[in-house]
Amino acid sequence: MITILKGNIISADKINEFKIFKDSFLVAEDGKIVGIFEKLPQKYKDEKVEDYGNKLIFQAFSDMHLHGPQYAMLGTGLDLQLLDWLNTYTFPVEAQFKDQELARDVYQKLAKELVRNGTTRVCMFSSTHVDSTLILMEELDKAGISGYVGKVNMDRNGGKNYQETTEESLKETKRWLAKCNFKNIKPIITPRFTPACSDELLKQLGKIAIKSELPIQSHLSENKNEIEWVKKLCPDSKEYWETYKKHKLWTNKTLMAHCVHSTESELEAIKKAGVYVVHCPSSNQNVISGYAQVKEMLNKGVRVVLGSDIAGGDHISMFENIVDAIKVSKGNHYNSNYKIPFLTVEEAFYLATSASAPFFNERPGLAKNNVLNVIILDDSNLPFTDKLSIKERFKRAIYTRQKDAIVAVYNGVKIY
Amino acid sequence: MITILKGNIISADKINEFKIFKDSFLVAEDGKIVGIFEKLPQKYKDEKVEDYGNKLIFQAFSDMHLHGPQYAMLGTGLDLQLLDWLNTYTFPVEAQFKDQELARDVYQKLAKELVRNGTTRVCMFSSTHVDSTLILMEELDKAGISGYVGKVNMDRNGGKNYQETTEESLKETKRWLAKCNFKNIKPIITPRFTPACSDELLKQLGKIAIKSELPIQSHLSENKNEIEWVKKLCPDSKEYWETYKKHKLWTNKTLMAHCVHSTESELEAIKKAGVYVVHCPSSNQNVISGYAQVKEMLNKGVRVVLGSDIAGGDHISMFENIVDAIKVSKGNHYNSNYKIPFLTVEEAFYLATSASAPFFNERPGLAKNNVLNVIILDDSNLPFTDKLSIKERFKRAIYTRQKDAIVAVYNGVKIY
Repeated sequence: MITILKGNIISADKINEFKIFKDSFLVAEDGKIVGIFEKLPQKYKDEKVEDYGNKLIFQAFSDMHLHGPQYAMLGTGLDLQLLDWLNTYTFPVEAQFKDQELARDVYQKLAKELVRNGTTRVCMFSSTHVDSTLILMEELDKAGISGYVGKVNMDRNGGKNYQETTEESLKETKRWLAKCNFKNIKPIITPRFTPACSDELLKQLGKIAIKSELPIQSHLSENKNEIEWVKKLCPDSKEYWETYKKHKLWTNKTLMAHCVHSTESELEAIKKAGVYVVHCPSSNQNVISGYAQVKEMLNKGVRVVLGSDIAGGDHISMFENIVDAIKVSKGNHYNSNYKIPFLTVEEAFYLATSASAPFFNERPGLAKNNVLNVIILDDSNLPFTDKLSIKERFKRAIYTRQKDAIVAVYNGVKIY
Repeated sequence: MITILKGNIISADKINEFKIFKDSFLVAEDGKIVGIFEKLPQKYKDEKVEDYGNKLIFQAFSDMHLHGPQYAMLGTGLDLQLLDWLNTYTFPVEAQFKDQELARDVYQKLAKELVRNGTTRVCMFSSTHVDSTLILMEELDKAGISGYVGKVNMDRNGGKNYQETTEESLKETKRWLAKCNFKNIKPIITPRFTPACSDELLKQLGKIAIKSELPIQSHLSENKNEIEWVKKLCPDSKEYWETYKKHKLWTNKTLMAHCVHSTESELEAIKKAGVYVVHCPSSNQNVISGYAQVKEMLNKGVRVVLGSDIAGGDHISMFENIVDAIKVSKGNHYNSNYKIPFLTVEEAFYLATSASAPFFNERPGLAKNNVLNVIILDDSNLPFTDKLSIKERFKRAIYTRQKDAIVAVYNGVKIY
């Protein structure tokens, strides 16, 4: 199967540079990119070209941290800080996902809306419920989305009707893993966070992750009270990250959301292990966690990717989250008396796309052999288009974040 | 002409409270609100009812500070601070609005997009050009928008091809005022800001404002360098605000955008005169001006309204600007070690709607005799609707800020 897309192509090969191919051809075979060409190679001359004219063609988004069931509570209850917010709003909502019919409805709508916003890859938390987690995986897979979903494990400090015993949690995890059989959605080991997981649970999850060669996702150093709590719960760990490291949950396929208050030594440990920091700027603002020092992390060589973190975050559009990441970093710039530089549009877009390429065993940008994973956007409702360069139009497209300007989305095949 | 809208009606009568009328009737005669009724009064029983079912009906938005010509540069060039940003990007773009054809194209698209986003009232800066300003007023008026537009005055420190002499500026202002004859769009005196206006120009503009009983809009204490510059330019004024006050441009129909760095005494002067502060959170973040202390202003009794300030701001949707206002205020909360409270959703929505009611000679909320100025929003693409209260659904609708969920907009008559 050959796919040829024609238009103005943008590829984020490097973190601070857009590569622009005006009026060019993006060619894929069997859903994998062959190359970008100014002139269509002779061998494709008889193939059908999807001509997108003056539109913009660019990498689709990876949302590397979000909570599927919390889509039900999007934009509500954002008046508390993390720990109170979890107990008051989040756990009671997640507990309802025992109901598979409810789960089906929410997850169908979520999958549709993700695609509609150009998000084609996810690393997502489900709830503790195995059968609803399988429904979530099925719905994402059917919608053409790739990535990872995790059944949440939590055997302490949960809410009413929302806590497992250690045994249940492990038994259910095994039942879930045995049933995971989807084309593009794979399982990921998902201890909620240290305050919700006993040492024994973390230990056994670490063993499962190694045995089944699975990636891992959790939360780290999001909120000051949370960090103090972890210190009390785990007196034998000097720093929060060690509570994961101790149980072999600290690998180069581990995603740690937030890292707002990570110390120098925690960041050093993150870098050394190749752990990914998932920056969630919208959530950090909404539940008033603080401001992650992303620019400094990048300067240190830490791997940073972007997450919407709904429903601490308020929007699944990664356009929105890119703009939030820039604004938050400008806050750090301002508060450092203009010393710490802020994220450029190029950098923030890279975090939402190419930065997660190694997690999916790919290379940054629209590289050869990567999956054809693109958005086509029509900015013709905006003025001045003929006076702007492709790069300016693209930056404007990011800032104007118009869902309705997305006219097509590909993830291997056309999914919207 | 009788209009009857049926649905779930929300009215922001007070700053920290939504009044909710489930499944009720909003009745207007000749485009003015008569009342909200749980049961339709007998006298209207034969009138046609626009039944919006389970949808949300709420006040449309007032954008109290934005620059029409800068719509052309939306989301571009946001990598500099205010004064450099003006000289590098803004003045060269505004200078192009001498071209009336270009102006027509940009302003038609802007007017359409404002309505599409539920903004029905504006206080807007045009460029210095009289004929293009009249085009802007005409296009807004045709689109059904109400409010004020100002020809910009600037006789110093402009860009190449973008500065008037004092005489020209005044002569052109008079020519413009003589030609303003639109149904719902009125003129407003618009000195750009003190650094761009000589004493003589400000003095004469003050006289025109008094003589013609016109409101006034300008900028105040947006950026630290700007404030220092004003001090040098106007050594006889102790504080920035006095440069306006001195020339009678400081009234209870004056809008001052930003006030990020206003001192206690400046805020006191604002309060005393009844000047409106237009808070522009998106712009303040983008051009890294700093963080206005809105909650403290409100506590002092200062009148605060909301503005998108495109294209320092990046989005004309007031949903976006409401969410930005909350996030910025949460930053102030965090940075004050959780001492200064943050804006609630109720408060931020009020700033974007009811807070400007007195400027338009109305009362807050969907009050009797106010213009029927509402948005109808369909949130049925989101899950869980039957489990949420109307208030929760409304807050979610604000946070999810879906343009495509807006199904109708009224400003006296139906305009979308």
